[in-house]
Amino acid sequence: MTEKGLADVIAAQTSISDIDGHLGRLWYVGYDINDLVEHSSFEEVTYLLQNLELPTETELKETLEFLVEERHISKFRQELMVTLAEKSSPMSMLRTAVSAASAYDRDGWDTSPEGYYRKAMRLIATTPTLISTYERFRTGAGVMPMRPELSLAANFLWQLTGKVPDPLEARIMDGTMILYADHTMNASTFTARVIASTLSDIFSAVTGAIAALKGPLHGGANEEAMHLLETIGSPENAERYIKDELLANHKLIMGFGHRVYKTEDPRATWLRRWSEQLGKLKGETKWYEISRAVEKVVIDEKGLYPNVDFYAASVYHYLGIPTDLMTPIFAMARMAGWTAHIREQHFDNRIIRPDSEYIGPRDQHWVPIEER
Amino acid sequence: MTEKGLADVIAAQTSISDIDGHLGRLWYVGYDINDLVEHSSFEEVTYLLQNLELPTETELKETLEFLVEERHISKFRQELMVTLAEKSSPMSMLRTAVSAASAYDRDGWDTSPEGYYRKAMRLIATTPTLISTYERFRTGAGVMPMRPELSLAANFLWQLTGKVPDPLEARIMDGTMILYADHTMNASTFTARVIASTLSDIFSAVTGAIAALKGPLHGGANEEAMHLLETIGSPENAERYIKDELLANHKLIMGFGHRVYKTEDPRATWLRRWSEQLGKLKGETKWYEISRAVEKVVIDEKGLYPNVDFYAASVYHYLGIPTDLMTPIFAMARMAGWTAHIREQHFDNRIIRPDSEYIGPRDQHWVPIEER
Repeated sequence: MTEKGLADVIAAQTSISDIDGHLGRLWYVGYDINDLVEHSSFEEVTYLLQNLELPTETELKETLEFLVEERHISKFRQELMVTLAEKSSPMSMLRTAVSAASAYDRDGWDTSPEGYYRKAMRLIATTPTLISTYERFRTGAGVMPMRPELSLAANFLWQLTGKVPDPLEARIMDGTMILYADHTMNASTFTARVIASTLSDIFSAVTGAIAALKGPLHGGANEEAMHLLETIGSPENAERYIKDELLANHKLIMGFGHRVYKTEDPRATWLRRWSEQLGKLKGETKWYEISRAVEKVVIDEKGLYPNVDFYAASVYHYLGIPTDLMTPIFAMARMAGWTAHIREQHFDNRIIRPDSEYIGPRDQHWVPIEER
Repeated sequence: MTEKGLADVIAAQTSISDIDGHLGRLWYVGYDINDLVEHSSFEEVTYLLQNLELPTETELKETLEFLVEERHISKFRQELMVTLAEKSSPMSMLRTAVSAASAYDRDGWDTSPEGYYRKAMRLIATTPTLISTYERFRTGAGVMPMRPELSLAANFLWQLTGKVPDPLEARIMDGTMILYADHTMNASTFTARVIASTLSDIFSAVTGAIAALKGPLHGGANEEAMHLLETIGSPENAERYIKDELLANHKLIMGFGHRVYKTEDPRATWLRRWSEQLGKLKGETKWYEISRAVEKVVIDEKGLYPNVDFYAASVYHYLGIPTDLMTPIFAMARMAGWTAHIREQHFDNRIIRPDSEYIGPRDQHWVPIEER
């Protein structure tokens, strides 16, 4: 059978996450995303995705300690970052720097379940450091020392911006990472599982996932949404711009609509609320207000709801994150889901290898070059 | 529908290559692989795969010139190689070093058909240099200067071993690269197309392909075949070893059987002949003879034919190639096919994004940590 794009073909079974697009619900291991955002932390959700159960107090304590200890990156990757900060786009940097992680991983070729688990958790712990180091290098600011008392999300903001975040900022950053942590079978997670299905290693599989997320049809919508808000500039301009510039020219509006959700994406509900809260905290409600105005026009005119990426744009902007780091931050959160899917693929593997259909010329006869 | 592994699902249409597994035939753009090996060169085949037609004399001349000019790697990647040669396995090195190529590519973000074509050809031209540089660095030998008068295959052997190859060696190396250049939809080519289908860039897509080829279920069979020949050690030991050690223990014999070919793989026919020729040239027919003895037992006992990887092992060994570089060499030849498939995917794109089926627990209720 021909299934260009493989739409609706089931390529794998998973116990990690599930979506009901009609009800607008998302679950991780059977837990409603709303419960997780309300009660949990990114670190705890990471444990859940990897182990398929919530941690006990001891298990969570050990997880937190490991994720703090493993935040540093090797001297090799620090040196590599000097050139990457100068020459590479953020997502190219992340692809190369994560690939390079295999060279110094302490668990090397250990493929025991324990060694494998440590490699996954180490990838989750170090990715924020790669992004903040890149940002500090490319702006010429000094690298900030890691703060062990801060959560992964709060420490990331501290190392990125040089300011310890307000408790509300830390809580919201952590919440966005919970929301981005997994989302069933998307192109990057599928890429990771295809690579894992050749029994290639975890570094190879996450490198491929980053390579796929880099594509504008997959990651990148949060960055595009921020560019849209900046172009519009003020809430009053929203309706005219959306109608005259985008809808009249049949252009896509980034951050709206989703292949799976037929109603509001539950992640958008949280992000809208956080955008409003941060606007008030920062005394700059403009980005939230423009977002609301855009949302109203798009729902009225097109019947499309905002997806996770639309309100993520203003939220991350309020948190002081440069627009071109918004897709790397998606990757840093999704690392929790990718590594869980890679381990799941390896535990019950079959190589993922579809067919192609040949549609080119047939039975061509060799012609010497002087006769062509 | 559930298609774990996606076996027999058609994920893309292609004009690049085609196989008839029952007849044991392989075509590139409708040209029989036997005609191409007999009359063509790796450079000309590269042109064919990229352009879907054979070049005129002028086009071939321009292609040869470009592929010579672009053999050098940037200073950044040379410096990176110092660490990778010390710390990375060959395929991890290749994944990181190819990913790093995006930082200095002269065509940068140019996505015009011409810029895109040059990036593809540059990846094909530089990959041999990455592998030979890695080998020279890790053995402490000096890097050999590129020789513009040599073909890509011959120059690779020269820069790898420090010896200009005999004409027969050069011809056979070139022939093996033609044979490995493409092979319809395999796991690495599929990975490249999935990544390309997000409209991610060509560096991302080939990095993912290398990540997939690294898996022992995909690349690596030629290396395993060489280890088998070395373990057997002499032709007289072959029958006993295969029967008593492998077949009696139901172990896989690497380099035999193929998902697609139900008769002899046409590539194996060439490689068997070349193994014999090189054995005579080198005055060391042992590896060829062991291979023949193994082949006989496996056909008699299991009815399985050698695939491309089995005789590639002794051929590459005769050409002075270290066993752990055999999979990188597969990658260096397949770069021609990967980049052709990536460009084909981009020219008529639809995102490749299958579904997953959720089989985990449902409706779990949040439990505070102290109650777990």
